[in-house]
Amino acid sequence: MEAFLRPASAYPPLLQALQKGPLKVSLVGSGNWGTAVGKIVASNAKNSHIFNTDVRMWVFEEEFEGRKLTDWINNHHENKKYLPGFELPSNLRAVPSLTDACRDADLLVFVMPHQFIERACRELRKAKLLPPHCRAISLIKGIGVRNGWPLTLTHEIGSILDLPKPCILSGANVANDVAAENFAEATIGHPDGETETAALWQLLFDRPNFKINVLPDVDGVEVCGALKNVVALAGGFCEGMGQGTNTKAAILRLGVEEIKTFTMLFFGDLLADTLYDSAGYADVITTVFGGRNARVAAAFVRQKGKDWDQLEKEMLNGQKLQGPATLELVAEVIRANEVEHLFPLFTSTYAVAFQNADPQAILDVFRTNRPRSIQRSEDCVKLKVPTLVRDARIRIASRMKKLGRSISELTRNPPDTPDSASEESNHKTEATPAKL
Amino acid sequence: MEAFLRPASAYPPLLQALQKGPLKVSLVGSGNWGTAVGKIVASNAKNSHIFNTDVRMWVFEEEFEGRKLTDWINNHHENKKYLPGFELPSNLRAVPSLTDACRDADLLVFVMPHQFIERACRELRKAKLLPPHCRAISLIKGIGVRNGWPLTLTHEIGSILDLPKPCILSGANVANDVAAENFAEATIGHPDGETETAALWQLLFDRPNFKINVLPDVDGVEVCGALKNVVALAGGFCEGMGQGTNTKAAILRLGVEEIKTFTMLFFGDLLADTLYDSAGYADVITTVFGGRNARVAAAFVRQKGKDWDQLEKEMLNGQKLQGPATLELVAEVIRANEVEHLFPLFTSTYAVAFQNADPQAILDVFRTNRPRSIQRSEDCVKLKVPTLVRDARIRIASRMKKLGRSISELTRNPPDTPDSASEESNHKTEATPAKL
Repeated sequence: MEAFLRPASAYPPLLQALQKGPLKVSLVGSGNWGTAVGKIVASNAKNSHIFNTDVRMWVFEEEFEGRKLTDWINNHHENKKYLPGFELPSNLRAVPSLTDACRDADLLVFVMPHQFIERACRELRKAKLLPPHCRAISLIKGIGVRNGWPLTLTHEIGSILDLPKPCILSGANVANDVAAENFAEATIGHPDGETETAALWQLLFDRPNFKINVLPDVDGVEVCGALKNVVALAGGFCEGMGQGTNTKAAILRLGVEEIKTFTMLFFGDLLADTLYDSAGYADVITTVFGGRNARVAAAFVRQKGKDWDQLEKEMLNGQKLQGPATLELVAEVIRANEVEHLFPLFTSTYAVAFQNADPQAILDVFRTNRPRSIQRSEDCVKLKVPTLVRDARIRIASRMKKLGRSISELTRNPPDTPDSASEESNHKTEATPAKL
Repeated sequence: MEAFLRPASAYPPLLQALQKGPLKVSLVGSGNWGTAVGKIVASNAKNSHIFNTDVRMWVFEEEFEGRKLTDWINNHHENKKYLPGFELPSNLRAVPSLTDACRDADLLVFVMPHQFIERACRELRKAKLLPPHCRAISLIKGIGVRNGWPLTLTHEIGSILDLPKPCILSGANVANDVAAENFAEATIGHPDGETETAALWQLLFDRPNFKINVLPDVDGVEVCGALKNVVALAGGFCEGMGQGTNTKAAILRLGVEEIKTFTMLFFGDLLADTLYDSAGYADVITTVFGGRNARVAAAFVRQKGKDWDQLEKEMLNGQKLQGPATLELVAEVIRANEVEHLFPLFTSTYAVAFQNADPQAILDVFRTNRPRSIQRSEDCVKLKVPTLVRDARIRIASRMKKLGRSISELTRNPPDTPDSASEESNHKTEATPAKL
């Protein structure tokens, strides 16, 4: 049914469209995160030469407190149901029809629960209303699976719509905090050949209180965003068992390790820089320390016997739990490819979450009588020294040189330390044992 | 006064000493962490062919509840003052004289407050009681500074004692949790040429509930261990201002970024692997989320007007705060080398901690009108694919081949997706606009 995902070069560039006038932006989704993002995007588009002022947001029409949701947004400038208490920019326009919301859009922002993605994309495809230079970005956390192989949602969106592989935006972001303009950061990952598109996305999202970094790694950013919720379940189980932060730190470390492995195994490459940015460690951390998946997982252990649906209903007040569904897909992929040995944490987390295993199984992954590991130099990756740092080193070195010293000498022996070659050794010699 | 720090090859190897019999282990320090570590080391040495059963621990003699501390440890097997409530192995022997504790030691474990290191090392040097193959490891968190240049404590220990640069052990470890045998991990960093020594240290420390990884990066591990407390202060200030986890995640990200910069600028290299291990992100996380430096820093903002000494006394019940002292040294190094532009977070944290700046200064570092950054491919580092993962990929690929598919094709288009080349495009064409 889908088209092959073709390289970006097979499509007209977005910058070409920009020459004809400001870019039209449409948001597909209007939940808690979607509305917070709509607020950002519409604020940036308001007085922009790059983006059309009118920002459309597709709203699944429903009634709330006697009014239609589109009416709340368009006339009261508040999404009373999903983001109550925040005033939305007047140029953010709620549109109840998906096709009307997206017609002729140059930029499509997908921000909806992942289970609705396929249907929305198929409807858009059928309507044939997107220009060939259209670009999409996904803000959705999740993965798919087909025949035992993992599928990213950017792949899904791009292939169904026959667009270049979309960019992805992910980071340590809590929707209400972002809406409140508390400071937050995020990462945009882009596929090969889409650096310029990503730079435009950055202009659309970057705000003084929402700072965006751009990286050439769409799969890495996306896998981190999806799989962090699995790590959060493992962390929550440990919390439920009463383990301390030591243990949680170990879970986090191994969790990121398995995210790395998953990405390299099924998608090829992964940048160290992705893990260092907001979409990487920073997001895994906030999810494990205080995200809803971790909280519900802790309750899963403490209130033994309740299933995920039940806990979700009791604890989340209508919000969805992404971890268990993602974990099931991850486990399916691991099983289909017979790579359980590479994913001890994910495998034991699945056993606890779905196979009635004792939560101790998580800890058993770590507790062995063998020493953990020894990493040899040839297996390690040296980080690149940024230009600014290299320049500073050169400047410092030249100043040192005037003092007759080199940096390498400095790091072995700082200035003003007299040469002690003539001093006695502190070594006890066999001939003259020290007295007791 | 100190000798130059010479390469490990200038000293007889430790393995040579091992051929003559089990290695004698001495701990220099017996506080909260020292005693917890003594428990681990003595447990491992108990029935070992590699380590002497008798593990000596230097104890600064003092009275506690009517008994000498050495008496508590040697006869009651408890460090009643610093680690009450935990039974210590009977082969952990408290020795009140530093020289008696370390005489003829093959392995020296330094685990004491960093301000006492220099004096202890000088006393040992003067006594000339260490064999030339002796090796040291430091478990101390801190840095020194001389003439504006940062000095690691392993450098200090090695150069004063004229030993090869010591290894370092650091990780996400809370002493009481480790003593209680809750699960924890740590990292041993070793200098060039000391892989075998590090492997012996691993055998000495690794336990089923305390798992150790070994890495060829002593400076990176040590700088992370020292500077995490500075990041914790910044995180604590944000907590004190009522900022949420979004903001804390940003602090963490930039904090690790500046730790990276500090290491590369003053020590040369840094491994990505160091940041991924327990001594890296995992430790920074536990320190920022719940360490005492973060807690006191939050109080510093909330109870405006109190200084660090006062808060330490009121809140820490005799424990020491490492963050402010480390921050002062870091700020001195940054100032002396005129590299404030590379350390906006550390610099603003210093301003808040010591120069009466408004805590908002921390947030001002992040809030700009410029987009955060765009990282180009050539500036990014691809992670190495571990052998296990590469093997699994090859195995999966060969299975796919039998099905007539390749992995690279798969990641673009999973199996069972029919070729859609013949399908209509979803693009709206100029000739036939879709109806509204």
